[in-house]
Amino acid sequence: MIRLYDSLSSGNGYKVRLLLTQLGIAFERVEVDILKGESRTEAFLAKNPNGRIPLLELNSDERLAESNAILLYLAEGTRYLPKARWQRAKVHEWMFFEQYSHEPNIATRRFWLMHPPISEERRAQLEPKLRLGYEALGVMERHLSTRAFFVADEYTVADIALYAYTHVAHEGGFDLHPFVAIQAWIERVRSQPRHIPITTG
Amino acid sequence: MIRLYDSLSSGNGYKVRLLLTQLGIAFERVEVDILKGESRTEAFLAKNPNGRIPLLELNSDERLAESNAILLYLAEGTRYLPKARWQRAKVHEWMFFEQYSHEPNIATRRFWLMHPPISEERRAQLEPKLRLGYEALGVMERHLSTRAFFVADEYTVADIALYAYTHVAHEGGFDLHPFVAIQAWIERVRSQPRHIPITTG
Repeated sequence: MIRLYDSLSSGNGYKVRLLLTQLGIAFERVEVDILKGESRTEAFLAKNPNGRIPLLELNSDERLAESNAILLYLAEGTRYLPKARWQRAKVHEWMFFEQYSHEPNIATRRFWLMHPPISEERRAQLEPKLRLGYEALGVMERHLSTRAFFVADEYTVADIALYAYTHVAHEGGFDLHPFVAIQAWIERVRSQPRHIPITTG
Repeated sequence: MIRLYDSLSSGNGYKVRLLLTQLGIAFERVEVDILKGESRTEAFLAKNPNGRIPLLELNSDERLAESNAILLYLAEGTRYLPKARWQRAKVHEWMFFEQYSHEPNIATRRFWLMHPPISEERRAQLEPKLRLGYEALGVMERHLSTRAFFVADEYTVADIALYAYTHVAHEGGFDLHPFVAIQAWIERVRSQPRHIPITTG
């Protein structure tokens, strides 16, 4: 059975849990306590040298890290990844946007606020990350103001990737009320068949 | 003709220039002066709402942002992207690693050092980014110690993505001398047919 090294509060882990569930793929979830350093033990680093969850383990030789790479792998050939080359390119574009412009600001801020105390070094970054996170939300809002989903007017892994930390952005100190298109999109994502909340293991 | 909005000193832009050249695809390069705010003008934001280069423009309706999404789009069906599903997944994994764990530390530090003065806010991040950049280089070194290239023992877009800022990491204050496997890999990448240096427009 597929094994997923995961952390229940992680949006990156949630992306994979959500897609596996929507695809109807059975998997064993292994909780990794990041705060206790369990993703940096020698045993875990042998599985993922970058020391991060989520990590998908197909067997003792085949493991895949990076949440969005896992989504793309699992979605291939399914309704969650468009077949057309240009549409797939746009899915990739939004997924790289998510990891570069969205997650490091919104997810990181959420993680810090959820796990006090906040060090001096991190405290200095709270304000810049708030500004950059709102910029990313602004880009999403503008795009969604004329569309139901990010690509091809269909629910794809681009939506899953961006939903993971957007729908809990308030936990990172972001106010989503002005973002009406994002709010409507969150409801559309939530109403997809077999949707599960982030806290479901 | 394909148009590439680009900045000559940008490693992210270089990735695309390099692959287009190796594929033998003619393109028009449009230099965007980031320091003068040219990627944040109303006209440019109409093309890429995220206000970044590189941006690939196929025509007035089709534009693609995010350097690694552009690489994947251009490489499809060519020798630079493996056909096998698992190998493609590993290419994606390394490309997301590059944008999340490598570029924000090594490229950002290089950009700041190349364009003084450095603000107080940024100065506080120089040390953490040095540490995280060396961590990313350590992950690469470990992987390359038993391999010629990142995936499938072939030169792929994963190598192009990681080469772009690794080979100029010294400009970000990183000492590559201890990383012997990375140094040997840099030479292998450099010796690929139709290779061009970063400063070539």
